[in-house]
Amino acid sequence: MPSKFIEKYLKAKKEKNSVLCVGLDPGLRSFRKEDVVPSKYERKDIEAGLLDFCLDVIEQTADYACAIKPNSQYLLFTLGIKELKKINQKAHKEGMVSIIDHKLGDIGSTNDAAFYWMQEAGFDALTFSPFAGNIEEATKAAHKRNLGILVLTYMSNVEAGWIQKQSLFEWRPLYQKIAEEIKNFGSDGAIMGSTGHVTMDDIRMVRSLIGEQSLILFPGVGRQGGNMRAVIGAGGNNILINVGRDLIYDKNPGKKAKEYQMEINQTIKDFHQELEKQKK
Amino acid sequence: MPSKFIEKYLKAKKEKNSVLCVGLDPGLRSFRKEDVVPSKYERKDIEAGLLDFCLDVIEQTADYACAIKPNSQYLLFTLGIKELKKINQKAHKEGMVSIIDHKLGDIGSTNDAAFYWMQEAGFDALTFSPFAGNIEEATKAAHKRNLGILVLTYMSNVEAGWIQKQSLFEWRPLYQKIAEEIKNFGSDGAIMGSTGHVTMDDIRMVRSLIGEQSLILFPGVGRQGGNMRAVIGAGGNNILINVGRDLIYDKNPGKKAKEYQMEINQTIKDFHQELEKQKK
Repeated sequence: MPSKFIEKYLKAKKEKNSVLCVGLDPGLRSFRKEDVVPSKYERKDIEAGLLDFCLDVIEQTADYACAIKPNSQYLLFTLGIKELKKINQKAHKEGMVSIIDHKLGDIGSTNDAAFYWMQEAGFDALTFSPFAGNIEEATKAAHKRNLGILVLTYMSNVEAGWIQKQSLFEWRPLYQKIAEEIKNFGSDGAIMGSTGHVTMDDIRMVRSLIGEQSLILFPGVGRQGGNMRAVIGAGGNNILINVGRDLIYDKNPGKKAKEYQMEINQTIKDFHQELEKQKK
Repeated sequence: MPSKFIEKYLKAKKEKNSVLCVGLDPGLRSFRKEDVVPSKYERKDIEAGLLDFCLDVIEQTADYACAIKPNSQYLLFTLGIKELKKINQKAHKEGMVSIIDHKLGDIGSTNDAAFYWMQEAGFDALTFSPFAGNIEEATKAAHKRNLGILVLTYMSNVEAGWIQKQSLFEWRPLYQKIAEEIKNFGSDGAIMGSTGHVTMDDIRMVRSLIGEQSLILFPGVGRQGGNMRAVIGAGGNNILINVGRDLIYDKNPGKKAKEYQMEINQTIKDFHQELEKQKK
């Protein structure tokens, strides 16, 4: 039986005819030269500017994307619970699910403080980092707070390999062991890279380990160069393809989201036609 | 040469004659039965209540502790940049260093967004989770933003062992490899458990790998049952002993901080006397 969060995801995916997820990572000129919000959003009242940016991007992309993924490192130092609520209310009004990209990874009592605040703010799910080893405990606690939990499994940044792909447990790589834990403990899904050292075989392996119904979230398609064909060909049906910078900093995020949606759906169609051909 | 953060730590340690660190993890009745702030701090204006609690605890413990460690999961969903600045200004006015317990672990560009906001807020250092593998990149980026970086190395929660102690890299445990990276890349120190599966030998091993000058932060002394004698006997000189719940929820945090300071300093004295005896 799919979890409550997976049910929400399936509903949004169906209604939007889209697995596109919009990564809300708003950079500012004050700390970055490229990939920054349009200047009208970088105001003296930083909080209000960032909130408006997020609300506008949701508004513009809602017809083409089924999820948003606001990142804590960009938003949490400025926005408070009231602003976070507004972002999630807007996403829900538009029929999207909202996943806070938090990479939470603390001890149980501290994780639960975060779960409480995430539920208060109205998020549907969160991203979780398994370094502390407590996937089972965190999954139970998140579900109690009505939150889905997606576990970092195999990241695409070049530095991730030495921890995540190194052999462990009778020479199986750590990321495969994490995928098994996701399955065993009923977490809602895995987060995987889609570029660099992450191969289609790696993605297929994780999908087979976590089962068909769980979600795989792929960040880093678009600017980070993620491989859309690999993601779709190996990831199974329940996927989310996140596009952040390439979309949110575009002059017209709505148009860009529509292009991504069409490209994704065409790739899915091509993939299934290819499969049919091979069957014959 | 000690890093800028280690210099700040050494100064505070000397001035306060203390290695005590106060963990600011304010729980609320709205999500927890035990370990909650006194009711006068749980106001309708949650933000203002939590801020006052933090400022009051700093005020009361400043004579006996050299550091504070505000935890992001308890504070960041409510407090904004203005309130975080006030906490850090207060800590600095009182001669303490401020370490944000954030367990950051994202890709480079996202980590840097967090570093920017941490510097804006006035923190001296942060805690970092190495799951994404990018210790070197994060250390450089944190130092550019004038922040010390303390890396989770071997945690004390029971679930941590299967990832952190499992053999890796020609059968050495992962936490030892992380300690080597801390040394190689000039991170400011390690975070280690002080209870459960973490032994004195584990602590000695990490100290020998990271070198004498780096800091080891030990969370979880006090309510979590951490072993103070082990920490002091094996941890070396540059340590921080964090006490959170047992101190901040006491009726008199100042008195409690003084008791911890005296107990720690007595244990250090006893340890050195024991060493001298053994030398003779």
